[in-house]
Amino acid sequence: MALRQTGDLSRVYPASRPMTAGIGSSAPRDPGNNCHKTQESLLSSASGYKNYRGVLNWCVVMLVLSNARLFLENLLRYGVLVDPIQVVSLFLNDPYSWPAACLVIVSNVFILVALYTERQLSKGSLSELVGLLVHCINMAVLLTFPAAVVLLVPSVTSVGGLFVLGTYTIVLLKLYSYKDVNFWCRELSTMKAKKLSRSLSCKSHIRERKVCYPGNLTLRDMYYFIFAPTLCYELNFPRSPKIRMSFLLRRLFEMVRKYLIIFFSFCQWMIPIIQSSMKPLEVNLNLSFQVPNHLLWLMFFYWFFHSSLNFTAELLRFGDRQFYKDWWNSESVTYFWQNWNIPVHKWCLRHFYKPLLRRGFSKMFSQSAVFFLSAFFHEYLVSVPLRMFRLWAFMGMMAQLPLAWFVGRFLRGNYGNAAVWISIIIGQPFAVLMYVHDYYVIHYRQEGE
Amino acid sequence: MALRQTGDLSRVYPASRPMTAGIGSSAPRDPGNNCHKTQESLLSSASGYKNYRGVLNWCVVMLVLSNARLFLENLLRYGVLVDPIQVVSLFLNDPYSWPAACLVIVSNVFILVALYTERQLSKGSLSELVGLLVHCINMAVLLTFPAAVVLLVPSVTSVGGLFVLGTYTIVLLKLYSYKDVNFWCRELSTMKAKKLSRSLSCKSHIRERKVCYPGNLTLRDMYYFIFAPTLCYELNFPRSPKIRMSFLLRRLFEMVRKYLIIFFSFCQWMIPIIQSSMKPLEVNLNLSFQVPNHLLWLMFFYWFFHSSLNFTAELLRFGDRQFYKDWWNSESVTYFWQNWNIPVHKWCLRHFYKPLLRRGFSKMFSQSAVFFLSAFFHEYLVSVPLRMFRLWAFMGMMAQLPLAWFVGRFLRGNYGNAAVWISIIIGQPFAVLMYVHDYYVIHYRQEGE
Repeated sequence: MALRQTGDLSRVYPASRPMTAGIGSSAPRDPGNNCHKTQESLLSSASGYKNYRGVLNWCVVMLVLSNARLFLENLLRYGVLVDPIQVVSLFLNDPYSWPAACLVIVSNVFILVALYTERQLSKGSLSELVGLLVHCINMAVLLTFPAAVVLLVPSVTSVGGLFVLGTYTIVLLKLYSYKDVNFWCRELSTMKAKKLSRSLSCKSHIRERKVCYPGNLTLRDMYYFIFAPTLCYELNFPRSPKIRMSFLLRRLFEMVRKYLIIFFSFCQWMIPIIQSSMKPLEVNLNLSFQVPNHLLWLMFFYWFFHSSLNFTAELLRFGDRQFYKDWWNSESVTYFWQNWNIPVHKWCLRHFYKPLLRRGFSKMFSQSAVFFLSAFFHEYLVSVPLRMFRLWAFMGMMAQLPLAWFVGRFLRGNYGNAAVWISIIIGQPFAVLMYVHDYYVIHYRQEGE
Repeated sequence: MALRQTGDLSRVYPASRPMTAGIGSSAPRDPGNNCHKTQESLLSSASGYKNYRGVLNWCVVMLVLSNARLFLENLLRYGVLVDPIQVVSLFLNDPYSWPAACLVIVSNVFILVALYTERQLSKGSLSELVGLLVHCINMAVLLTFPAAVVLLVPSVTSVGGLFVLGTYTIVLLKLYSYKDVNFWCRELSTMKAKKLSRSLSCKSHIRERKVCYPGNLTLRDMYYFIFAPTLCYELNFPRSPKIRMSFLLRRLFEMVRKYLIIFFSFCQWMIPIIQSSMKPLEVNLNLSFQVPNHLLWLMFFYWFFHSSLNFTAELLRFGDRQFYKDWWNSESVTYFWQNWNIPVHKWCLRHFYKPLLRRGFSKMFSQSAVFFLSAFFHEYLVSVPLRMFRLWAFMGMMAQLPLAWFVGRFLRGNYGNAAVWISIIIGQPFAVLMYVHDYYVIHYRQEGE
């Protein structure tokens, strides 16, 4: 056996191809020819290596270690600031009236109106023009009614108002998509009726157990769409084969844990900073507000876009889990806005940007219009619940346009990525701080002094 | 054209395969069937997604932003602490005697002795036993002579001593590898002589322009190995085709920049911390020492293992640039030690661990022996230049063994990775701080008080 091995080796020696060193003899089988091979360092761009998973853990460890002392100091200085009564008071001013919950229940009326209108349109009982008018009125009321209630009824708290307006905005976008898709379906079936090919396509549909046009106008289908984690309606959503219990429980656990961490951090970390300083620019410059605000935003992102939406999707067996793409690698501001919130991005692209292009508007104009719409909703969701019209959110969103131009024009690669991070870390808290400052000045200054 | 398109569409509708929406008509071509597809979220482990390059930039931005204020405060408080005279004094006590440089020049004697011995062995003028004896004496002197000089000559500074001992240790490991590989070559050629297959293999060698055994014993080959960024000798190193000037200049620029940053940070950031506190445990607990020490270590890693070694390799057209692997993702302590310093790991594996296994020792024993050897050299490189024998470095390395067992036994995945990071961030500075504290107590306390 030993002889045979030696024979083998004298044949392969001195070729430098990989060879496992034999163990058990007095010398290794490779006299120094298999030790090195031509290769690049991992951190050289030529290596194509990109797995920095460990760096995420490094961040967590560094954050925990460098904040452990701050955390202890904070606890010793302020004590435990989390107060269950305060939590309830965020949502309720008067425990016997639940205006926010009532408003959310009322939103079903608008959903049912949209469904009823579509049914009538599918039967031909309503003309397309009348149907469009009904939809428009329905959506206009959907936008203004909750805002009016939140502004006029004093028992709606800011958090409650934000929750209501958020829900109504989501329903509005969903119903808009519902109307559009059903209209497209009617348009296509008219075309097909002319070509007599409808029966064929519907047969294949039935074979694949898919729904075709008028068959989707059911209460069950409508409410599946309302609860599904997407804003774009589709007749046949991709479905996952079954609910994975372990996945569901993991996401649920994450949701609860992250929610508690966010809530605790907010009470313990942000409120003292806000209360102790009424000079926003000074706070802003020394970054004691930016870093917690940014970390809370990151936690919120994970909590909402990863844990909560995945939990809902798993529960509804909704197949498409792309709620965000790799915005953390974005090298331009545009890439960031296109990838951090995929449901909204998808809606804007399908129901706003592309229709504008189809009507002959330029790309530049359509893109600006999307930012304008987004700016309007940002302002709507902030100003109305806080009952303060300051336009900071609107201007913050609109400022993204020149920023996107600047970063796209002058910065590439990692520099572009760093610029995006800086705009998120510094820019976003700036707008938030403006509101926070004004809100505290209005509501608490007289009490404090 | 429009008709033909419609015809196409009635055929593909309602199949849900990807389709580009036509622009220019009044309605999109897909009535809501191509909007979603089954896919996982990127952060779910099922997606297999691992590109977190942007997170590295996030770290840099967060570090810069959160340290900008500290940096300004430091400058205002201490002024510029970097002093070119002090830099020189780190290396020289007396500007007319350069003991460290002389010692480095003397190391050539040992290299030439090793080469001469190998030449005599290849000719058969020395027996294997005598050759081994000469090598052993040569290496023993190589280890003890510089240590004796550093300990006995007071004009050698600590930094100079570290540099000398580092150089001598590297030469020692290289010469050990040189001796081993040449011995293996002689052993193999004896085997081949018995099988009469030598002429054949050497012909193929000449065709491939490769060196075969006694032909490698030249001054040129020896000095190429001494300067090459590896500790393992090989007759035919893989070579890169040419020197890429842009790569060389980029690495040079990085080297100089990182060196200046490290030097500046050390003077400006570490020295005040060290001087202001003589109570190591207190400093250690509030992490004001750990974080700068860790960041300096990371910068040193990049400076030495990426920039400097790649620069040398490019200059020498040395093909194997694997100076480190992805230790930042390491999920066990063992993986970290196997991957952060590939030249040393390769040497240990080839010239220490595998020979031990071949002699019948157990894996456990051989692994412990490697850690013991490593601990010895850590202590040698720290204690001798500082002229303090405290065993902290030795114990720090030996403590890796139970730590490796604990992490490997109880922690997996990201938890293991976090444990490795914590041991690097907390553990390493602890040992460093012990020396620093003792050094300052011995040398500066009397001056300060």
